[in-house]
Amino acid sequence: MVVVMAPDATAEDVARVVERVESVGGEAFVSKGLSRTIIGLVGDIESFHHLNLRTLAGVADVHRISDPYKLVSRQHHPERSTIWVGSTTRVPIGPETFTFLAGPCAVETAEQTLAAAQMAKAAGATILRGGAYKPRTSPYAFQGLGVAGLQILRETGDAVGLPVVTEVVDVRDVAVVAEHADMLQIGTRNMANFGLLQAVGKAGKPVLLKRGMTATIEEWLMAAEYIAQRGNLDIVLCERGIRTFEPATRNTLDISAVPVVQAASHLPVIVDPSHAAGRKDLVVPLSRAAIAAGADGIIVDVHPHPETALCDGPQALLGGELRELAQAVRTLPQVVGRSSVA
Amino acid sequence: MVVVMAPDATAEDVARVVERVESVGGEAFVSKGLSRTIIGLVGDIESFHHLNLRTLAGVADVHRISDPYKLVSRQHHPERSTIWVGSTTRVPIGPETFTFLAGPCAVETAEQTLAAAQMAKAAGATILRGGAYKPRTSPYAFQGLGVAGLQILRETGDAVGLPVVTEVVDVRDVAVVAEHADMLQIGTRNMANFGLLQAVGKAGKPVLLKRGMTATIEEWLMAAEYIAQRGNLDIVLCERGIRTFEPATRNTLDISAVPVVQAASHLPVIVDPSHAAGRKDLVVPLSRAAIAAGADGIIVDVHPHPETALCDGPQALLGGELRELAQAVRTLPQVVGRSSVA
Amino acid sequence: MVVVMAPDATAEDVARVVERVESVGGEAFVSKGLSRTIIGLVGDIESFHHLNLRTLAGVADVHRISDPYKLVSRQHHPERSTIWVGSTTRVPIGPETFTFLAGPCAVETAEQTLAAAQMAKAAGATILRGGAYKPRTSPYAFQGLGVAGLQILRETGDAVGLPVVTEVVDVRDVAVVAEHADMLQIGTRNMANFGLLQAVGKAGKPVLLKRGMTATIEEWLMAAEYIAQRGNLDIVLCERGIRTFEPATRNTLDISAVPVVQAASHLPVIVDPSHAAGRKDLVVPLSRAAIAAGADGIIVDVHPHPETALCDGPQALLGGELRELAQAVRTLPQVVGRSSVA
Amino acid sequence: MVVVMAPDATAEDVARVVERVESVGGEAFVSKGLSRTIIGLVGDIESFHHLNLRTLAGVADVHRISDPYKLVSRQHHPERSTIWVGSTTRVPIGPETFTFLAGPCAVETAEQTLAAAQMAKAAGATILRGGAYKPRTSPYAFQGLGVAGLQILRETGDAVGLPVVTEVVDVRDVAVVAEHADMLQIGTRNMANFGLLQAVGKAGKPVLLKRGMTATIEEWLMAAEYIAQRGNLDIVLCERGIRTFEPATRNTLDISAVPVVQAASHLPVIVDPSHAAGRKDLVVPLSRAAIAAGADGIIVDVHPHPETALCDGPQALLGGELRELAQAVRTLPQVVGRSSVA
Repeated sequence: MVVVMAPDATAEDVARVVERVESVGGEAFVSKGLSRTIIGLVGDIESFHHLNLRTLAGVADVHRISDPYKLVSRQHHPERSTIWVGSTTRVPIGPETFTFLAGPCAVETAEQTLAAAQMAKAAGATILRGGAYKPRTSPYAFQGLGVAGLQILRETGDAVGLPVVTEVVDVRDVAVVAEHADMLQIGTRNMANFGLLQAVGKAGKPVLLKRGMTATIEEWLMAAEYIAQRGNLDIVLCERGIRTFEPATRNTLDISAVPVVQAASHLPVIVDPSHAAGRKDLVVPLSRAAIAAGADGIIVDVHPHPETALCDGPQALLGGELRELAQAVRTLPQVVGRSSVA
Repeated sequence: MVVVMAPDATAEDVARVVERVESVGGEAFVSKGLSRTIIGLVGDIESFHHLNLRTLAGVADVHRISDPYKLVSRQHHPERSTIWVGSTTRVPIGPETFTFLAGPCAVETAEQTLAAAQMAKAAGATILRGGAYKPRTSPYAFQGLGVAGLQILRETGDAVGLPVVTEVVDVRDVAVVAEHADMLQIGTRNMANFGLLQAVGKAGKPVLLKRGMTATIEEWLMAAEYIAQRGNLDIVLCERGIRTFEPATRNTLDISAVPVVQAASHLPVIVDPSHAAGRKDLVVPLSRAAIAAGADGIIVDVHPHPETALCDGPQALLGGELRELAQAVRTLPQVVGRSSVA
Repeated sequence: MVVVMAPDATAEDVARVVERVESVGGEAFVSKGLSRTIIGLVGDIESFHHLNLRTLAGVADVHRISDPYKLVSRQHHPERSTIWVGSTTRVPIGPETFTFLAGPCAVETAEQTLAAAQMAKAAGATILRGGAYKPRTSPYAFQGLGVAGLQILRETGDAVGLPVVTEVVDVRDVAVVAEHADMLQIGTRNMANFGLLQAVGKAGKPVLLKRGMTATIEEWLMAAEYIAQRGNLDIVLCERGIRTFEPATRNTLDISAVPVVQAASHLPVIVDPSHAAGRKDLVVPLSRAAIAAGADGIIVDVHPHPETALCDGPQALLGGELRELAQAVRTLPQVVGRSSVA
Repeated sequence: MVVVMAPDATAEDVARVVERVESVGGEAFVSKGLSRTIIGLVGDIESFHHLNLRTLAGVADVHRISDPYKLVSRQHHPERSTIWVGSTTRVPIGPETFTFLAGPCAVETAEQTLAAAQMAKAAGATILRGGAYKPRTSPYAFQGLGVAGLQILRETGDAVGLPVVTEVVDVRDVAVVAEHADMLQIGTRNMANFGLLQAVGKAGKPVLLKRGMTATIEEWLMAAEYIAQRGNLDIVLCERGIRTFEPATRNTLDISAVPVVQAASHLPVIVDPSHAAGRKDLVVPLSRAAIAAGADGIIVDVHPHPETALCDGPQALLGGELRELAQAVRTLPQVVGRSSVA
């Protein structure tokens, strides 16, 4: 950490900071500038946090220098991780492969889920997605089938031979979701629901952690750290768009997050172009962009009948667009140095 | 709702929309423009949502016209509400009064909490705040004392004669928090934790609902609707800053939210200048601005020893600044047409 | 400045930074941490900028510590400045007074301008605003009357006895605007039009510098520095809302900018609630908030017939709302320690 | 346009809107809903704007339905345009090809510019970029060589056989820049400098129009409309990142803007990954993403000695990264259905 003193800080102010730092076993290096003094701190950063240096007289600012996350950081774990999803069929998500996850936004009926799963598989998907619990902005919107939805999803996954990922929105549902699903998804609205993060950290299944729609990348990695801290390092990060002033898309896909995360963390990162854009005409170009930027996978909404979908119909792919996407997934990853999923 | 057809929409496309709308008992009014056709829908908006009109051929856009919230809307409830907090002492928050809530960010010890409560009361506060459960970005930061903190807060409130408000972050803690506190706070990170909203909607205590740091005002009112829908209309909204590109403050206090919310909803709205700014030198000017803009109250961090605070020390008031704030709370509300809290 | 080395930086990397810094006459203080080394730089910051330290091997980051602006900074000029506007009538804007500027968004006709000026004056305004050059998003919108508008504004100001401020949008118009107006306004879209800033810096008249709608406060002060650097320190800053994700208001008034700017710069700062909100029902509460937050003035749109205004009619005040505003301007500044404008 | 009446609007309020619309030759279709009335307007949209319908009693909101730009819209010009740059060598930018523009951020010396141009050409670039006028946030930063820089750029372009593009920042420089350059660039800070847009609209050379760092796509297309309206339709749009809350990158590259613009306008759109990210390690992945998303070209900073660059050194490519980029430009466009530049 670096402590920046105010221009009018006195020698006593500087001495007080040094004394504090040394009181918790740290070292303080004082650099006296023309207009300001700065103090470099060496030692245990957690103990420095408790000093509340920012409240001391004469202190103008305190800069943190090193990453606040440890377990998910690439600093001490330079090799990028591969996460395996599923029990009978095991599907990798990681630096060697490119993984395609697809399925309906919400599980509505067994028929609709099976039809969507078959579309997804035919298009090359190797993991099936589908929501049984839907966090909706309006209390009057369809909230998902709950446990009945989990059962449909599980049976459908088994029928078509794909592992399944589904969202958990309530800490009380973690056990039942972990029982039915191969991977637990934390949605964008729950990225900072720390109790839920800790619960999935103990659930024994890999976690798909979506970025909060207004979270910085650092906060997102801190959320992953919450999961990791409970013993679960099987985490896949998912960029799904951030909130900006641009109204043409539902959110702005932060494509730079892919290489930024890969430089900062050893965890895999995938992209959700469907929820980012909220428009199905953008799903194919954004999926191509994600592959080209080096994403470890994509997750896409498909639906056999978007016009009757209970959730996010306008962004679900089918027909020609899905074929175009399948083609991109088959050919583009190799061009940027990946094998497809075996 | 209004459906805007694409410039190249055919007569069949228009007919299909009309037919769909009529199939659920609605009426469709077609206006044929020079370059586009628009269709006004009259009837039950929920049934229209299920039509997924946006997925139909020839449809360019669908605009919602009326508010998506009902119970908290001022449209059918023009008189602004007053919420009462506390059992022995009952404190109002509403259009007639100006209410001052204050206390430590986190309950750390009985001594610190009592000292902060006495400071708060001396400054004119009539409701005591204090956190027993702290949602922290880092899993390595102080997470609060939990039930022990609730007990300290309750005893302190009783000792100084102030009702208490405290945050609940986990749906499993709602009962124990409701048992100890007079008002339940939903923090900014949980504004879209819909399970938690529904749980506090049934807890039988008033709720202080902070705005999500990146929520629109409409989403915030939808979150209040989640609580109201479970039978609890004793909700106070709290503006606490939104995330923008400006780094000089932790968040940007959206002072316009005060009159905007008061025009849209009958619920009271207060302002948290401490968490918005994250800098104690801004708390007094922002508190004054909140009073002048017509806020129904403010909630402010105070701490007897900010330099040893386990949470948000840099923004806690004491000494001269707190006296200045007390002065503003005593004098300014009358100038803008309010009585102080009796 | 502080240079943060990467975790894998070598001793040679550190030595190279030190050598570079010393090559331009600076001093480098090395602090070796457990996982990283940081280097504090002392000397002329401009010369350090040219070193491009960020491009050197082993350098992870470079933090600037001191303010990048000098002439407008409060650091070397602790007393807040008062700017005087007008020649016959001289009106102050500064820390002692509260100044009310009002007038029509655009000068349309002599009659409309006079009517608006009389409304403004009756409500207590002491400086008349009015646009002769209007920067409009659409090339098909009304662009202002140009020189004819300047003449109307000048004559109207003289007739009612108020100094006038008007916007200049093109570097070629600076001379003619300076000839007619008592104060030159730089609008939000031109805050980073550096050629225009330099031109008004030499025009010999005070400048009203609006914040870019997406500028940080630091960038805004740098824009003021451009003007100051050409010899003109008669600058008044104007906060007018920033672009965020919130759609309920045209922009989000950053009320915190008032105390933040006053802490960082000696220049006066006023608030434009009309353009921030874009809704006339918010002008009175936001004006009150601005006064209470310590703004040195406000600038408000008034129009005798908003329904026929050629520009921004929906935000112009008249009638009851203007009387309410006049009342706030008369009474509220004293409550927060100001005299009104004499 | 659609006028939404307030819930408490009277029959007279509705009649007044209808009467106004008809007074300018429009038609008004009234749809009476359960809680609100909406009125669809048919006729000349410009004449409706002058009605200021939003100021009328009983009017809650006015929605625009059709695009506010015409000349650059794809609606009446469905075929995407190709713009040709250069006189002796003519280089296309459009839907059939993928164009690579590269060069130094700033022209510093003849040697540096030549070295950068040779690097650019060797990597496959067919248009040379380089700045002679640099709009800098700080008045103390290097502002460019001006006319001397234009001459160096022109001579370098001729020497290596590449057309040149350079930024113009002041309306008084348009003629001299147009004399030396093959394409005029409008930078992000000047996107809303309407006088400058009109001036380049008459300069007789193609224009590269960067998106304002906080402009919506619609505002960007309106800026293009300003240029087009003066008779110049040879416009290439350039996405260069928008301002968000994410600090890991200088700006957030809005990759979705590529397909969104291509759907809305017939003009070509290219991407600037160097200025978006501000970090050279992101240039290659973002360039790949741009190609894959369907961009018509990219523009990239290269510099023979980034560590001595007078401007934006940290983002300039050289060596291995430039070779990687060259490889992507050679191979990736074909995969997504483009020929390279002939």
